[in-house]
Amino acid sequence: MSVRSTRTSTKNTLYMKFPILFCFLFLFIALSEGKHEVKHMLLAKLKQGISEDEIEGYIKQYANLVNLVPSMKAFAWGKDVSIENLNDGFTHVFESTFASTQGIAEYLSDPDHVAFANTLLPQLDKVLVVDYMPTKVKL
Amino acid sequence: MSVRSTRTSTKNTLYMKFPILFCFLFLFIALSEGKHEVKHMLLAKLKQGISEDEIEGYIKQYANLVNLVPSMKAFAWGKDVSIENLNDGFTHVFESTFASTQGIAEYLSDPDHVAFANTLLPQLDKVLVVDYMPTKVKL
Repeated sequence: MSVRSTRTSTKNTLYMKFPILFCFLFLFIALSEGKHEVKHMLLAKLKQGISEDEIEGYIKQYANLVNLVPSMKAFAWGKDVSIENLNDGFTHVFESTFASTQGIAEYLSDPDHVAFANTLLPQLDKVLVVDYMPTKVKL
Repeated sequence: MSVRSTRTSTKNTLYMKFPILFCFLFLFIALSEGKHEVKHMLLAKLKQGISEDEIEGYIKQYANLVNLVPSMKAFAWGKDVSIENLNDGFTHVFESTFASTQGIAEYLSDPDHVAFANTLLPQLDKVLVVDYMPTKVKL
């Protein structure tokens, strides 16, 4: 048996000995990934007369900022589906995730974001932005 | 060896044979848990003069709804930290998670939620609510 295969065998044995420990370690890493994050929420009221295809195009451009702006970690969006009539006319929610408020500041001044903002904002009747660090409550 | 211990041993063998498979299965379940969720976002502008202790009390009551309303799956909150001056005066974000819009409807009519809403709303200068299903974009 070569030195190399002996080492591999030792590793495998360690791994095989504690599979539950490894599972929890992976789970912990995966779940704690979003712990120190800041959400950048943009609420938009889209102008009347913009087609669904056009809206889809804008959303794809927005989502593509994740590939262009290094500090932007994730993007999701959704139509407002609330039934309480407290949405103040906002029709869409855009949720971007950053590791810090510094990351949001970098995003705001990034040329790719600025170019997209100049494309999107004229399509909106109004816009509202809040940033917050989602915090769990210990009861 | 009893029948019981033979069965246990077979299970363990299966588990030990495919630890990586099990890890990925656990990871998949853990990460996909939030896939079909609806976010209920409440933006609030708190009235001047409410102390930090009082605010903490309201937030704890809000968070405790997770223990009282069966359809409410998670709660997080954060102060607005945005720097764009587009927050329209909103100071706090409260993020509740549900499995469906039906779950939000159940929450809205739940007596524990109604009682808390009657406590919180008089403390607010204004409120805005949007619900949305966070959707990823395939590029």
